[in-house]
Amino acid sequence: MAPIDPSVRWRQYGEKPDYAGLLTFGGASYSEDDADLAAVDVAIVGAPMDDLVSDKPGARLGPRAIRAAGCPPGPHLEAGVDAFAALRILDFGDAPVVPGDPVRSHQAIEDLVAAVRRAGATAVVLGGDHSIAEPSVRACALANGGPVGLIHFDAHTDTGELVFGARLSHGTPMRHLVDDGHVDGSRYVQIGLRGYWPGPEEFAWQESHGITSHFMHDVRDRGIEAVVEDAIARVGAGPAYLSVDIDVLDPGVAPGTGTPEPGGMTAADLMRACRTVAQRVDLVGADLVEVAPREIGSADITAVTADRVVREILTGIALRRG
Amino acid sequence: MAPIDPSVRWRQYGEKPDYAGLLTFGGASYSEDDADLAAVDVAIVGAPMDDLVSDKPGARLGPRAIRAAGCPPGPHLEAGVDAFAALRILDFGDAPVVPGDPVRSHQAIEDLVAAVRRAGATAVVLGGDHSIAEPSVRACALANGGPVGLIHFDAHTDTGELVFGARLSHGTPMRHLVDDGHVDGSRYVQIGLRGYWPGPEEFAWQESHGITSHFMHDVRDRGIEAVVEDAIARVGAGPAYLSVDIDVLDPGVAPGTGTPEPGGMTAADLMRACRTVAQRVDLVGADLVEVAPREIGSADITAVTADRVVREILTGIALRRG
Amino acid sequence: MAPIDPSVRWRQYGEKPDYAGLLTFGGASYSEDDADLAAVDVAIVGAPMDDLVSDKPGARLGPRAIRAAGCPPGPHLEAGVDAFAALRILDFGDAPVVPGDPVRSHQAIEDLVAAVRRAGATAVVLGGDHSIAEPSVRACALANGGPVGLIHFDAHTDTGELVFGARLSHGTPMRHLVDDGHVDGSRYVQIGLRGYWPGPEEFAWQESHGITSHFMHDVRDRGIEAVVEDAIARVGAGPAYLSVDIDVLDPGVAPGTGTPEPGGMTAADLMRACRTVAQRVDLVGADLVEVAPREIGSADITAVTADRVVREILTGIALRRG
Amino acid sequence: MAPIDPSVRWRQYGEKPDYAGLLTFGGASYSEDDADLAAVDVAIVGAPMDDLVSDKPGARLGPRAIRAAGCPPGPHLEAGVDAFAALRILDFGDAPVVPGDPVRSHQAIEDLVAAVRRAGATAVVLGGDHSIAEPSVRACALANGGPVGLIHFDAHTDTGELVFGARLSHGTPMRHLVDDGHVDGSRYVQIGLRGYWPGPEEFAWQESHGITSHFMHDVRDRGIEAVVEDAIARVGAGPAYLSVDIDVLDPGVAPGTGTPEPGGMTAADLMRACRTVAQRVDLVGADLVEVAPREIGSADITAVTADRVVREILTGIALRRG
Amino acid sequence: MAPIDPSVRWRQYGEKPDYAGLLTFGGASYSEDDADLAAVDVAIVGAPMDDLVSDKPGARLGPRAIRAAGCPPGPHLEAGVDAFAALRILDFGDAPVVPGDPVRSHQAIEDLVAAVRRAGATAVVLGGDHSIAEPSVRACALANGGPVGLIHFDAHTDTGELVFGARLSHGTPMRHLVDDGHVDGSRYVQIGLRGYWPGPEEFAWQESHGITSHFMHDVRDRGIEAVVEDAIARVGAGPAYLSVDIDVLDPGVAPGTGTPEPGGMTAADLMRACRTVAQRVDLVGADLVEVAPREIGSADITAVTADRVVREILTGIALRRG
Amino acid sequence: MAPIDPSVRWRQYGEKPDYAGLLTFGGASYSEDDADLAAVDVAIVGAPMDDLVSDKPGARLGPRAIRAAGCPPGPHLEAGVDAFAALRILDFGDAPVVPGDPVRSHQAIEDLVAAVRRAGATAVVLGGDHSIAEPSVRACALANGGPVGLIHFDAHTDTGELVFGARLSHGTPMRHLVDDGHVDGSRYVQIGLRGYWPGPEEFAWQESHGITSHFMHDVRDRGIEAVVEDAIARVGAGPAYLSVDIDVLDPGVAPGTGTPEPGGMTAADLMRACRTVAQRVDLVGADLVEVAPREIGSADITAVTADRVVREILTGIALRRG
Repeated sequence: MAPIDPSVRWRQYGEKPDYAGLLTFGGASYSEDDADLAAVDVAIVGAPMDDLVSDKPGARLGPRAIRAAGCPPGPHLEAGVDAFAALRILDFGDAPVVPGDPVRSHQAIEDLVAAVRRAGATAVVLGGDHSIAEPSVRACALANGGPVGLIHFDAHTDTGELVFGARLSHGTPMRHLVDDGHVDGSRYVQIGLRGYWPGPEEFAWQESHGITSHFMHDVRDRGIEAVVEDAIARVGAGPAYLSVDIDVLDPGVAPGTGTPEPGGMTAADLMRACRTVAQRVDLVGADLVEVAPREIGSADITAVTADRVVREILTGIALRRG
Repeated sequence: MAPIDPSVRWRQYGEKPDYAGLLTFGGASYSEDDADLAAVDVAIVGAPMDDLVSDKPGARLGPRAIRAAGCPPGPHLEAGVDAFAALRILDFGDAPVVPGDPVRSHQAIEDLVAAVRRAGATAVVLGGDHSIAEPSVRACALANGGPVGLIHFDAHTDTGELVFGARLSHGTPMRHLVDDGHVDGSRYVQIGLRGYWPGPEEFAWQESHGITSHFMHDVRDRGIEAVVEDAIARVGAGPAYLSVDIDVLDPGVAPGTGTPEPGGMTAADLMRACRTVAQRVDLVGADLVEVAPREIGSADITAVTADRVVREILTGIALRRG
Repeated sequence: MAPIDPSVRWRQYGEKPDYAGLLTFGGASYSEDDADLAAVDVAIVGAPMDDLVSDKPGARLGPRAIRAAGCPPGPHLEAGVDAFAALRILDFGDAPVVPGDPVRSHQAIEDLVAAVRRAGATAVVLGGDHSIAEPSVRACALANGGPVGLIHFDAHTDTGELVFGARLSHGTPMRHLVDDGHVDGSRYVQIGLRGYWPGPEEFAWQESHGITSHFMHDVRDRGIEAVVEDAIARVGAGPAYLSVDIDVLDPGVAPGTGTPEPGGMTAADLMRACRTVAQRVDLVGADLVEVAPREIGSADITAVTADRVVREILTGIALRRG
Repeated sequence: MAPIDPSVRWRQYGEKPDYAGLLTFGGASYSEDDADLAAVDVAIVGAPMDDLVSDKPGARLGPRAIRAAGCPPGPHLEAGVDAFAALRILDFGDAPVVPGDPVRSHQAIEDLVAAVRRAGATAVVLGGDHSIAEPSVRACALANGGPVGLIHFDAHTDTGELVFGARLSHGTPMRHLVDDGHVDGSRYVQIGLRGYWPGPEEFAWQESHGITSHFMHDVRDRGIEAVVEDAIARVGAGPAYLSVDIDVLDPGVAPGTGTPEPGGMTAADLMRACRTVAQRVDLVGADLVEVAPREIGSADITAVTADRVVREILTGIALRRG
Repeated sequence: MAPIDPSVRWRQYGEKPDYAGLLTFGGASYSEDDADLAAVDVAIVGAPMDDLVSDKPGARLGPRAIRAAGCPPGPHLEAGVDAFAALRILDFGDAPVVPGDPVRSHQAIEDLVAAVRRAGATAVVLGGDHSIAEPSVRACALANGGPVGLIHFDAHTDTGELVFGARLSHGTPMRHLVDDGHVDGSRYVQIGLRGYWPGPEEFAWQESHGITSHFMHDVRDRGIEAVVEDAIARVGAGPAYLSVDIDVLDPGVAPGTGTPEPGGMTAADLMRACRTVAQRVDLVGADLVEVAPREIGSADITAVTADRVVREILTGIALRRG
Repeated sequence: MAPIDPSVRWRQYGEKPDYAGLLTFGGASYSEDDADLAAVDVAIVGAPMDDLVSDKPGARLGPRAIRAAGCPPGPHLEAGVDAFAALRILDFGDAPVVPGDPVRSHQAIEDLVAAVRRAGATAVVLGGDHSIAEPSVRACALANGGPVGLIHFDAHTDTGELVFGARLSHGTPMRHLVDDGHVDGSRYVQIGLRGYWPGPEEFAWQESHGITSHFMHDVRDRGIEAVVEDAIARVGAGPAYLSVDIDVLDPGVAPGTGTPEPGGMTAADLMRACRTVAQRVDLVGADLVEVAPREIGSADITAVTADRVVREILTGIALRRG
């Protein structure tokens, strides 16, 4: 059946209030039907699981919170394009995750992203903990027939082989994606690293796979623009994935996350960087993860910032295609 | 088009987690299409407006909060009936209210409730401030072709003629409904009154219209069962409406409301009373109003209690029809 | 100069919104001038200090929070009298407490209460930690020329001789008031005691002074009405003081306090008990203490309940005088 | 090595402030050494895991929160005994749970409880989600050499065979404990059930195993005392376990839990019931689960109530042994 | 009668604690009497209304929150002047707004600002939603006998002709002020615009009226100093008004506002910019709007920042006059 | 007896989850035994008192909150050293402060720091209000046999002679330390000053003692690196103390403090500055004060940032010794 458009009842006013009507990302149309993906440029997919966090849980509440923190569509005041007008964007709903079973939840996420890719659309996944990047990128790489590039904003590398002795964790997805051949280490760039993890073993592994790391002190010393330019050059022309852990931001602007690390990026830097990446790189998928909300609707500054980061990604895609 | 059922993707597990999937009341199917009302017993209607509160706003966030505080369907452990199995329940979405224009918002609410009544279904409206009872009851009375009875749980009578000099207010709907002939004063019963409002003028008006008031000290002295029996007897056999202001509860269990009044009902008393009323009275409509949420999802005890009060109403309707 | 009346600008509407205008208790007139006490029945005095708490601080924010949680005046729906119409009530402002110096703060409180008593008015003090009862009752007893009776609602006896080795504490005021001859032990009744403090030494001292203790399990077993009747009989006809520690309530209705003790009174019981006491006993003063607010305005259920407890006291005084 | 006593530095004052010093349960001595269990009557064990919740997580933060909400030891004002003086109580620390691996976490909990039982002490476990009852009771039953009785306060039966298709869940422990022969169904009593779960399958299974259910409407209709008397009679003289899910309380007094269900018990009823059970039944172990804290220290009313429930259990044990 | 000075009782200490005493802006003297305006340089006026917000309400609680977040007067550590010593500042109280009636509320605000201007004082208005700029600027322009200049810090232009089909809205005041001849478009400068609103129609209208827009990306690229210099040059020598929407700040420093937009200004930049504008421009009035507080007193970082922005304006005025 | 190591039970996993196990700073070993100081490089000392704040209390909850906001040890990603591996760090517990008696609390803090210094270890004190710097620095200076240098990050100078007429206050410690000869004014540097306090008297006193002040506008104009270089040069080669008031940060990143002042430092600047100071200066002691937490564990961004600032200090010490 056709997607449902939440704004229909408000047609005479030209705009639906954000707090009213069916809850979808940015007020986009909603469908859970694969058939509706055919006419879509970007599909939003929720991945509400947090079984694999190592500290504070709550990211399972992230997808709904990000949707509830949205603002109405409109032209991006710097870029001059309205992604919701330029692209066909569908809220494809949440993957059928189940609490307490990360293996089945990962499969559900992978299936949904695969369906999006099969239809030729770009998947933008709302986490959930960062472990969801593993099935999401895997689906994209399998659809691509080979490894993809990866630009990864995060305070942490997420390249542990094991965390607390376990292979599945929000601290290990990138390790497995490279080891399993879904991400090309030489086209994998990390931005925003800081704090006290990981250690020498992980960095040695990273080096052996040609992974590029831009620490937060690099952003401080060189500026975000130079770092992003380097990242884009490193990833180059092929298909790539953009993974954004909201904890790359300073806790002052993103307090609602499970493993906050002081000294992070500003929202303005992250938003612009994501738009630039999405405009300049051939994205086959993206995710925004680790939002563990604390307040209702747009009062949650982590969720409202996450919503805007996703919109910058959409704006960048629109600019690239426009 | 057909309603969308949020639980489809979770079919193999038999249950959808409350925090995942499309946000609808109790996980019910969703449609905004009048045609879908034909096959419906009860339609949930959101009325997300709070333009007419006299103190703290926030009830515009109530409908979404109540939906987000739900639990999965199942048999009521005392009553032994699962309302979602016994009744055809549809989430009919929110009325297209607009901020800053209560007149148009009231019209939108009235139109939606009227559509529900025309289809022969019972409307259960999620407020919003208590002013929404005015268009909701009016629609029911007009569909009925004459005044309806009213059972009204509240700390306040809401029978002011003017509040702050204005006719439209969350403190005036019941006055206008009686004055305009939509509610029969002799079949109108208030339960839970306390505090310092209203005054002699309003009570004199109430007396002249034969309205019955059960104060909170009556509940204390006589018990809720006796009070509810009296109310049911007073309303009698004809069509009636049930209006529940969440501030009838003690602020300890319903802190998220705009004009809390200490010394109120327990949740258990209110839930049971609403079930009894819905089972024993011929309800044409009902509302649950003044939820101004403060926490996310089921963490908001006001919203979770409001959800359960609505479920008791649904359970009562199911018992009546079963 | 004459008191300032916050409602003047709203005269045409008959009511001032609680969130607007000058912040005074219940919207009462405000003055800091002793001369204005002459025409007053009850003077509200703030005592914003919390230097002497033994656990969580925050009660210094209590007086302002209680004022901000008020509702407009009106007739008490059970008692039928509007205390603000029946009595001349003045908000006499806060005592000039200073942080870090409880001795000077106590002196400031005592001075203000003494001024109120000199003018023949009843002082109702908004705490602040419970140590403020010491200067407040002392001022009343000195004005009285001898010891007064005391009805004391609290989870704790506050009759330690020393707490953490210190004489000044929120756990010691009642001990000193009796020992110093300001309270008559045989006319001193405690209601609501529970938990794990104090121990045998304090209870032995209490017994030797003829103090009456009603534990929370007495309230449970006998009902609040019987307990209050006993207390009124014990205090008898002479002048007495009413001291209410908000932690006598269950933490579910009064979470905002420094030493919460589960298993306490309901708001309805406390409110009615205070009204009864104020109506039946010759009160020379009263206090409401230990409100450590957590939310803004009427959203703070502890403060809103505290406001209503004070209003019950005022209502009782009005009934007594009417 | 010998346990560490947090109050040593405060010896001259006779009391340690709750917010200062090493964080242990009730300020008890702390040790992780099995050898120290020899001289212990009761060992407190933390089980900070929430991997198996079906809705909102956060109970992994429960054990620390309960410890931080404590009050100093002292005589119980109704029972007249100080459990910390009458019993040798040790905080035995947390089981070495790991995030994301409930199997290993359960093993760690079972090992610690087994060590406590081997030493002849009673284990009191602080959850964590309710799944921790499975390893805890199992350890007690294995130490006992056969099934134990069970008194279980909860809004839910937790007797699902599978929840979301999974055997391990906070909704299944009691089912497995009975099926595996660790709990004797004929000596298993549930108190406080309400809401919409479970359904006919689970109740049929319960009936076939002779399990006794007291619903919340039974508590309402018969009173908690009669219900508890029935439960004690049913469990009889043999060894038994007491499991308390904090969600048996009304959300107004226990908002910090993952699956709140309105209409629950009062804190006073639950506290007294637990004391009575602990005094009258031969407890080999107990747990208090599902505290998902929201505020700091004693400001979290759920944690402070949980602390007091545990203290009532300790008081009951002290009364039994005294 | 003479203004009331809240610090009198603390005279011996030289300073009143912020949390004690009568609540006024910065502890300034308070009066509601027009006669007292004669001896005043700056009058603070509260405008506690939020009827015209398009998303989350709460700004009606702003004026009281800003007053409660103040700090004692003193010399500005960079500018070296104490505005409270250099200027005669009066808290003139709140305009008599009424809930649910924005037309009457606007009239009340206009009347109060007009009174201030008649007395020759500068009005500094504490919102309230941004719609209050319409009556406030209008009063200033009418007193001026012609249009004034406008410097406007905001994430949004607030130049919609209609929002949700309504003329009165917090998204339309600047449009009407220009169209009605109260603001000179060629002397109107916006700073801080970002996000997704408004669209081409509004910007075309702006261009046709010669309005100058500095986007947030201009602040990023050119620095706040250059942007402010341009703004001051554009406004020039005549009378002007300064309107500051707190949402011009990044949500990380101003989370308490109804329509937060990530990527905003730092508090340091905004504070300095406002001081510079107030020192260099001939201000006839100013406002600070859209503070929807979430925490008590100075714990609300939005309100405490708003207080300091107002103080920078006062400091700038003091520097200009000094 | 030997210190207790909280990570023992998690040895097989190589890491203890932050939310589990005994609560110590960074998961360090814990002892209250002076004998254990012998083998220690750095001892963490808690000073949980807030009796001497002038505005909002709560810092007594700081030490526990900072410990609860920690992350596991590991190599600093910029500096490349793991302080917990390079240094022998002991959590020496809290000083036995008592509520309501700042004199005895100060003595207790001084005694504990003196014991640390006697053992040759560096004391790092977790406040508590800033008054605790007075006993802490005094102990260090007395151990040193003469005045020490001081680098002081703060929004305020804390050099009042009296605050509210009292000598003991969180606004006076630095004055007394200089006047009493414990700090050498010519080697005392303040960084981050802003706002409206203190006034000319205090600055005159500062000048007369050769104290150096770097205002926040100096940081803005010159950059933090230049300011820190100046400070290090000024303090020179001798023993020095580092005192960090968390309110030197902008309220956006450190909302949990008693006297927030907008326009402060970024977390990144403060963290790096503290590491540099600790690496370049001969620190005999340090403190981090005025954390008044609002959220649980790492959800409190003020506490998590405070933890990381302390770790930067430890990292700097490790770099200096390495």
